[in-house]
Amino acid sequence: MVGGFKIVGAIAIYKGEELFFSGIHYSLLKLIIQEGSINSAAKHKGIPYNQAWNLIDKLNKMSPVPIVVRQKGGVSGGGCQVSEYGRDLVKIFENKLYSFDKTVMDLNEDLDACIM
Amino acid sequence: MVGGFKIVGAIAIYKGEELFFSGIHYSLLKLIIQEGSINSAAKHKGIPYNQAWNLIDKLNKMSPVPIVVRQKGGVSGGGCQVSEYGRDLVKIFENKLYSFDKTVMDLNEDLDACIM
Repeated sequence: MVGGFKIVGAIAIYKGEELFFSGIHYSLLKLIIQEGSINSAAKHKGIPYNQAWNLIDKLNKMSPVPIVVRQKGGVSGGGCQVSEYGRDLVKIFENKLYSFDKTVMDLNEDLDACIM
Repeated sequence: MVGGFKIVGAIAIYKGEELFFSGIHYSLLKLIIQEGSINSAAKHKGIPYNQAWNLIDKLNKMSPVPIVVRQKGGVSGGGCQVSEYGRDLVKIFENKLYSFDKTVMDLNEDLDACIM
């Protein structure tokens, strides 16, 4: 790459005019599935707990079905689980992201040659 | 659409790690070509003149070739022109946007059925 130009793209799911689900929700949910708590997911993601909690709280409120559910008691003394609906949403977004990333890669073909 | 969910996407051209050219540059340049001045383009776009000027100034500084050039004197008493390089950039971005929009439209196929 001579010019160092590249096309960068992003997708998000909107509900009506409002942002519902974007890349940050996707990576947070994947970490909550892996870690079992919002706190630990936030640490792994490198964002404040409050920010993660607000993102998840708004997501739950906008969703037709709860996405992250509190798990009371048990040996682990609580934590969070991602519902089946939430896991489906993660898979759907992942698939969309996969097709999308391929397009963005294609868009980058010959870009430097065009711009420089 | 029952759930009213839709995927929204955006692309931008980066130079290294820095944003170079995005949708707002694209629409501003098209308006400058049409109107012949940043001032009139900003009015049509509904943004303050200063914001438009800063966007164009930064774009010119980052570009390997000037994009918007001041046109001195003449019957119209000055104004701005978009260079050939700038016009090419507009065309390149427009073509990329066209492929991109088709992908985003495809990504929206069945989305409501998946999420609701």
